[in-house]
Amino acid sequence: MANDDERLERLQGMLRQRGILLPAFDLYGGAKGFYDFGPVGGRLRSRLNQVWIDHWLSLGNIVEISCPTVTPYEVLEASGHVGEFSDFMTVCGQCDEASRADTLLEAHHPNPDALSQSELQSLLTKVNPDCPSCPTPEWSPVVAQNLMFSTTIGAGSSGRPGFMRPETAQGMFTSFPALYRHFRERLPFGAIQVGKGYRNEISPRQGMIRLREFNMAELEYFIDPNERPNHDFSSWSSHEICLIDGDGVSHSMTLQHAAESGLIRHPTVGFFMGKTFDFLSSVGIDGTRVRFRQHASDEMAHYASDCWDVEIHGSYGWIECVGIAHRGCYDLEAHETATGKSLRARREFSEPKIREIDGWTIDGGVAGPAFRADAGQVKTIVESFDADVEFPVEVTLSDGRNLAVAAEHVKRVQKTVKETGEWFIPHVVEPAFGIDRILWHVLDHAFEETEKGGEPYRMLKLADSVAPIDVAILPLFEKDGMDDLALELHQLCCSTSGLVSLYDGSGSIGKRYARSDEIGVPICITVDHQSVEDRTVTIRKRDDGSQTRMSMDQLPFL
Amino acid sequence: MANDDERLERLQGMLRQRGILLPAFDLYGGAKGFYDFGPVGGRLRSRLNQVWIDHWLSLGNIVEISCPTVTPYEVLEASGHVGEFSDFMTVCGQCDEASRADTLLEAHHPNPDALSQSELQSLLTKVNPDCPSCPTPEWSPVVAQNLMFSTTIGAGSSGRPGFMRPETAQGMFTSFPALYRHFRERLPFGAIQVGKGYRNEISPRQGMIRLREFNMAELEYFIDPNERPNHDFSSWSSHEICLIDGDGVSHSMTLQHAAESGLIRHPTVGFFMGKTFDFLSSVGIDGTRVRFRQHASDEMAHYASDCWDVEIHGSYGWIECVGIAHRGCYDLEAHETATGKSLRARREFSEPKIREIDGWTIDGGVAGPAFRADAGQVKTIVESFDADVEFPVEVTLSDGRNLAVAAEHVKRVQKTVKETGEWFIPHVVEPAFGIDRILWHVLDHAFEETEKGGEPYRMLKLADSVAPIDVAILPLFEKDGMDDLALELHQLCCSTSGLVSLYDGSGSIGKRYARSDEIGVPICITVDHQSVEDRTVTIRKRDDGSQTRMSMDQLPFL
Repeated sequence: MANDDERLERLQGMLRQRGILLPAFDLYGGAKGFYDFGPVGGRLRSRLNQVWIDHWLSLGNIVEISCPTVTPYEVLEASGHVGEFSDFMTVCGQCDEASRADTLLEAHHPNPDALSQSELQSLLTKVNPDCPSCPTPEWSPVVAQNLMFSTTIGAGSSGRPGFMRPETAQGMFTSFPALYRHFRERLPFGAIQVGKGYRNEISPRQGMIRLREFNMAELEYFIDPNERPNHDFSSWSSHEICLIDGDGVSHSMTLQHAAESGLIRHPTVGFFMGKTFDFLSSVGIDGTRVRFRQHASDEMAHYASDCWDVEIHGSYGWIECVGIAHRGCYDLEAHETATGKSLRARREFSEPKIREIDGWTIDGGVAGPAFRADAGQVKTIVESFDADVEFPVEVTLSDGRNLAVAAEHVKRVQKTVKETGEWFIPHVVEPAFGIDRILWHVLDHAFEETEKGGEPYRMLKLADSVAPIDVAILPLFEKDGMDDLALELHQLCCSTSGLVSLYDGSGSIGKRYARSDEIGVPICITVDHQSVEDRTVTIRKRDDGSQTRMSMDQLPFL
Repeated sequence: MANDDERLERLQGMLRQRGILLPAFDLYGGAKGFYDFGPVGGRLRSRLNQVWIDHWLSLGNIVEISCPTVTPYEVLEASGHVGEFSDFMTVCGQCDEASRADTLLEAHHPNPDALSQSELQSLLTKVNPDCPSCPTPEWSPVVAQNLMFSTTIGAGSSGRPGFMRPETAQGMFTSFPALYRHFRERLPFGAIQVGKGYRNEISPRQGMIRLREFNMAELEYFIDPNERPNHDFSSWSSHEICLIDGDGVSHSMTLQHAAESGLIRHPTVGFFMGKTFDFLSSVGIDGTRVRFRQHASDEMAHYASDCWDVEIHGSYGWIECVGIAHRGCYDLEAHETATGKSLRARREFSEPKIREIDGWTIDGGVAGPAFRADAGQVKTIVESFDADVEFPVEVTLSDGRNLAVAAEHVKRVQKTVKETGEWFIPHVVEPAFGIDRILWHVLDHAFEETEKGGEPYRMLKLADSVAPIDVAILPLFEKDGMDDLALELHQLCCSTSGLVSLYDGSGSIGKRYARSDEIGVPICITVDHQSVEDRTVTIRKRDDGSQTRMSMDQLPFL
């Protein structure tokens, strides 16, 4: 473990020194929970995002959208975030440092984040844990602290409360009408969004794992719960993956088997698990360090019917990097309820249904004047009554008021209707990706420590798909025309679409190779004296150190 | 003008209906100043961003970075935004609606946004302008309202104030040390960042032109002010552009001529004006509707030595979409001053300079104990004195305190030093792009209204580089194998890297062509009865409506 911690420190030091990941606002003493993607890390991040986008767009029924990060209060109240997106906090009266109560109690309980507010309070009072910032802790009562960054939209008295979004998902839900129209009212379809999410952590730790501002990538895939999808699992048929079920039991089986046996409860969840595995492999995550962990029923949100975490193993142990959840109709229904607007899809019956109606409706001429603005609600309630109800009946409105509906307000309805289809709230399967956590593990898995000439030697064996610099152009010396030729080649690379080249003329060629290896450049091209004569250059490959001489006018990637 | 307004309304309606641009949070009654990029617009936005990034990266000495949007107070205090990023506001006491004072006075003054707070107050009192929201205005005193969204980082008493960034630029400035290291301490170099910026407008209007949350793209290019850059203007040598100088006089001349004549005051500013024109052309902006307008000296920030707005003409008239400013050393110096950390580059002299020093320094043994923490500051001040100063001298520290420096605190210094180079604060040239405004004009310029069969017909003639959907696959009917073949072709397109395909099987073929034209799809492929027999399909081009039959196995873009 000590070894691992030292490796982690060396990796972090290298990432910082090489301009890959740096603590943000470092000039100003830093701000916990914020990172910069530096001159090398910036493109790593944008390439990773792009691979993710292309991966999902290639399914053919998925579109990319982009919604604001500033979000009005009402939207996040409907989604449940105002009420439930919180951690339990306590503040040390001696040093004013806020801490998560469960974090303080980690040494005193096997699973403190499952404790309720009162359980946390009792345990805190009992053990009086150490304060991370001062020697004499004095803990305030445990309170629920909402984790959204709050702000005000507009100024003065016309300002209204808002938050920075805690996830990108809500944008896809509130865009449902536009999506449904775009896809010509045919399920299934999905929408993806890549962007910032915000979580005002009480006390961030673990570097890139727990950030206050993070890069998210989410897919919301809308399905008809009555249709059994027919996904093709064949590309994973020879691959047994590690699945840990809700009881903590580990299984090694193929995705198809897991879906057929019922361990994975919906085929679309299983299909997205496979697609997620493919994505992670394509950006360089080591597949042997990936596992899928099913939520236990008491761990899962009450509305979810199945949820799998995709965990990746690295310097911090097993870390949840992706969550794949079957969310039922929860989200669309919540926004329907809050706004009164329909977020439904239509399903046509294979043959029309004939339905005998024998019940009640309101008599508009009497009920309208009697109930005024409530008449619509009363109508809905009355139409849900059986034929044998006896009036007057006391009904309860959505705001809790009671009204008496008398016989004069209603009339009997008896008719036969032919229905060709029906409206329903689509269900949603959501794969949600923490891009920073994945990016961290891409770096962690790519980081290789060896020795060269008795000295420690470090490299990043990044996948070509995400390597931030595609090629480094190195003149052996910056004289005798080597620099000019190297710059000519550099400009040629730069003008090739999608190719990023680094010109580096400073220091010994060995040091420049080492630096290129540390930032994961797959190919170095060296321009030497001979190059000036015959325009041949040396191609050096990062991963095996092999060197090949070839004409600079016939480079395969140009 | 009425015609233009109607065209604008039709365009906005189409963009909304077709899922390109939609008012955000529409389900919840909307929120002024926020837009969604919908199922079609999302990819338009991300492609535009990518073209922008590739355009600048191709210069060869520019890198992409990404910094947080949540920013601590201190950073934006140093940059000047806490003090100066504000508009003058007044609130109507009758209806509580906040308004910009200058906007209210537009009908009463030719240029109200140039007025001071007291001038605005006098004019407001004098004319008592209409309130946009109620019939009986009652204006509160004019106050300066800061336009940043404010928030709190962290919770409870450990929380510290912060803002959502008003621009991406500060991230490049605070990253200067990492950039300087990455570029091996050699100027010039640049860093770009694409991302969200925030401006809590008092009263947003004009759709995409004035948003509260917007997409920005900025380049900060760091140069040595002593080096005269040698930019290549040849690619614009035959192109005269429209330049309006600081006095409002219009010129038509080439960029090279403008730079040589001194109208453009720095060659790098001129070079970036050319590169900006190229970028705008490459995404479909009509070059004849672009002009460059120089800031008058009283319009320019005090630190800037030249500033040009790139204005694009569209439905809202001439709109500033890009600003290209020579910012001098202002930004790096401000962060140096605030943090006490060096943000400098080193310049080697062509030959060493011999300098005779005859002056003073502190006597550490006496001055150290006497001035303690202030000793360093006193040393700097004393070393700036001429040799003939007479002690004691009263000096003023940066916080305003005065100290007496006596003869015993100092000693004479007389020596000869050889200096091989010096440290200096690089200057910055900044092209700053408002992506939403550019995207708006891309749509505006691409929008073409014609007639077909006596009916109005609308299309978006988008450039291929930004078209959100590359190809639409249309089965003539969804039966007899045409649907299967169309889906096969759709899947093939989807699995082609970077290609986005839309399958559309609903409605008449004419209606589907029309819909494709409205979302700017360059190519439609129709699968008909003959296709099922011989695998030939019809390729229809958006811009000329031409139709060609070819084998679906030999499509040029697959």
